[in-house]
Amino acid sequence: MSEQKICDEQYMMRAIELAKRGEGWCHPNPMVGAVIVKDGRIIAEGWHAKYGEKHAERNAIASLKESAAGATLYCTLEPCCHHGKQPPCTEAVVESGISRVVVGSRDPNPLVAGKGNEILRNAGIEVVEDVLRNECDALNPVFFHYITTKTPYVIMKYAMTADGKIATVTGASKWISGEKSREKVHMLRHACMGIMAGIGTALADDPMLNCRIENGRDPVRIICDDSLRIPMDSKLVRSAAEIDTYIVSGNSNCDRGKAEKLKDAGCRVLIEPGENGKVDINALMHDLGESGIDSILVEGGATLNYSILESGCVNELKVFIAPKIFGGAAKSPVGGEGVKLPADAWEFVIADIERIDDDVCITYKRKKD
Amino acid sequence: MSEQKICDEQYMMRAIELAKRGEGWCHPNPMVGAVIVKDGRIIAEGWHAKYGEKHAERNAIASLKESAAGATLYCTLEPCCHHGKQPPCTEAVVESGISRVVVGSRDPNPLVAGKGNEILRNAGIEVVEDVLRNECDALNPVFFHYITTKTPYVIMKYAMTADGKIATVTGASKWISGEKSREKVHMLRHACMGIMAGIGTALADDPMLNCRIENGRDPVRIICDDSLRIPMDSKLVRSAAEIDTYIVSGNSNCDRGKAEKLKDAGCRVLIEPGENGKVDINALMHDLGESGIDSILVEGGATLNYSILESGCVNELKVFIAPKIFGGAAKSPVGGEGVKLPADAWEFVIADIERIDDDVCITYKRKKD
Repeated sequence: MSEQKICDEQYMMRAIELAKRGEGWCHPNPMVGAVIVKDGRIIAEGWHAKYGEKHAERNAIASLKESAAGATLYCTLEPCCHHGKQPPCTEAVVESGISRVVVGSRDPNPLVAGKGNEILRNAGIEVVEDVLRNECDALNPVFFHYITTKTPYVIMKYAMTADGKIATVTGASKWISGEKSREKVHMLRHACMGIMAGIGTALADDPMLNCRIENGRDPVRIICDDSLRIPMDSKLVRSAAEIDTYIVSGNSNCDRGKAEKLKDAGCRVLIEPGENGKVDINALMHDLGESGIDSILVEGGATLNYSILESGCVNELKVFIAPKIFGGAAKSPVGGEGVKLPADAWEFVIADIERIDDDVCITYKRKKD
Repeated sequence: MSEQKICDEQYMMRAIELAKRGEGWCHPNPMVGAVIVKDGRIIAEGWHAKYGEKHAERNAIASLKESAAGATLYCTLEPCCHHGKQPPCTEAVVESGISRVVVGSRDPNPLVAGKGNEILRNAGIEVVEDVLRNECDALNPVFFHYITTKTPYVIMKYAMTADGKIATVTGASKWISGEKSREKVHMLRHACMGIMAGIGTALADDPMLNCRIENGRDPVRIICDDSLRIPMDSKLVRSAAEIDTYIVSGNSNCDRGKAEKLKDAGCRVLIEPGENGKVDINALMHDLGESGIDSILVEGGATLNYSILESGCVNELKVFIAPKIFGGAAKSPVGGEGVKLPADAWEFVIADIERIDDDVCITYKRKKD
């Protein structure tokens, strides 16, 4: 590998680090990091810190304490060239005098798609593409999915024992996984724009489904509740004025009076009629995507998990496995009808295996056909 | 760390490698490796290759092509000093002129327990103990357990989907895990002296429960079968003349005629009466230990797995997790009554996490109270 390439990758690694600082705050924008280097020194750094605010490149340029003339900009994602909430980054880059731009991910946004790099080149700037592209792409699976499909990236999460149980035979489930794993789940809640659960979970646990880490962001709560059974005095309904909450029914004939009451309490009520009065998950995902929700963490019980899998919209699976055995005919993470033959199973590929104290967390991605 | 210590550890690592060559062949003896070093050169190596044959130290000494006078012996386990199938290794070491012995594991065998090292010291040999002791101990969990308890070391193994199923709702289970994982299971069958399954598995799959790897050793087969339902034309019974096979009933009133037929076919029939006509697992383990079986791989279904766990005799758990989801009310790895509360669960600690192609294998050890 040439010395230039090694240097480029090192600065790109730094840009990736910076990008991660935006995790949980820039939805539905991507996480992006930028580094400006001149004469072998980093002279400015930036990242996209919050949706609606400056992009990484502009943040880096804004923090310059000297001229960037002749400098190199490292950027984890192709600079944007369109007017959104912010003016195009390409303009700022050209104005800054930067003479070389090193790019990680290509922008999958059809509004950009190579045009950013083209504008820079037309301005006489040298553009190097695809440096640590895989690593940069890995920063933004949500963005890449959402920008191309307009539906949320769906992460299904559950915790089970080493014998595949999510509760004991008596239904007790506190706790399956350890404290560190549960903290991790709150990080996921922070990182995802939405969280989804079924009415079974809502009735059994009366959960808040919020993010309980310091400086964390609460996800929008989405409860699949065909018969609008959620109690008005549940924590979810009582906190709906503070935290966005969708109550979703698949039954067009559901109780309109209850729906009105829920709305008065601050909930949004969605009717997504599917088969047998069950929520049409794909229609729901489409509508949530339209509302700007780019990512959903599903913390369902066995029934909801099955419906979500069956809808085909699961992008990622996070399985926390606790070093315990419950035994018995207890609940497992995925119920429903189930497949008849092993060949009909939903298939995944391992993306990551992490030990978290005494638990193991396996992250799977959907297997591409 | 001193240079001497670094050298000692390097040679001990080599001795550990050699010890592993005996895997599956030296039961119920431990795996042991030995290296003889003189003037910074390895002048001989040995390992315990097969039960009843020479121990590692004697094998190393026998392979010497020059005098070992003044040499150092590295040995993963304290040399034995008692007459068993073989004369004491300490005698051979003293005779060889070796002047320094570096030892990994201490021998837990009450017949030896430090006496070996003492004899060497009394003969004027310098003895260094506990070099890579943990690594050396890890070679022989079976031996350490068996020599102190006289019951087999029990490894429970199962393969499940990422949603904790061992079959689909229709009972189909071929295959859950991938080819590489199934090869791994045959390595386990080779490494364990016995394999145990329930009559449910025997009836459903008509298995051989043998070891299908090249140069592999077939384990003794132990089938828990309270009502002696195993068919006379099953593969297990038909091959009982070639491969040791125990049919175990917990029912004192089981069909004596069938028992005689099974014996005629070459099976051993054991009656281990427990509660409700079920096998008394602890009594069975005691008797199997008495017969010299030091290790058992349990490849049970949900019912047997529960009984074995309940008996408290599981030392190790090997959970193969396939990247698939079956869903439905399908069988899980551990059935039976199950525990009522999470706090009552059987608890384990992670010993190893291994990725095997698209599967994950987690090895757990029983949590010490």
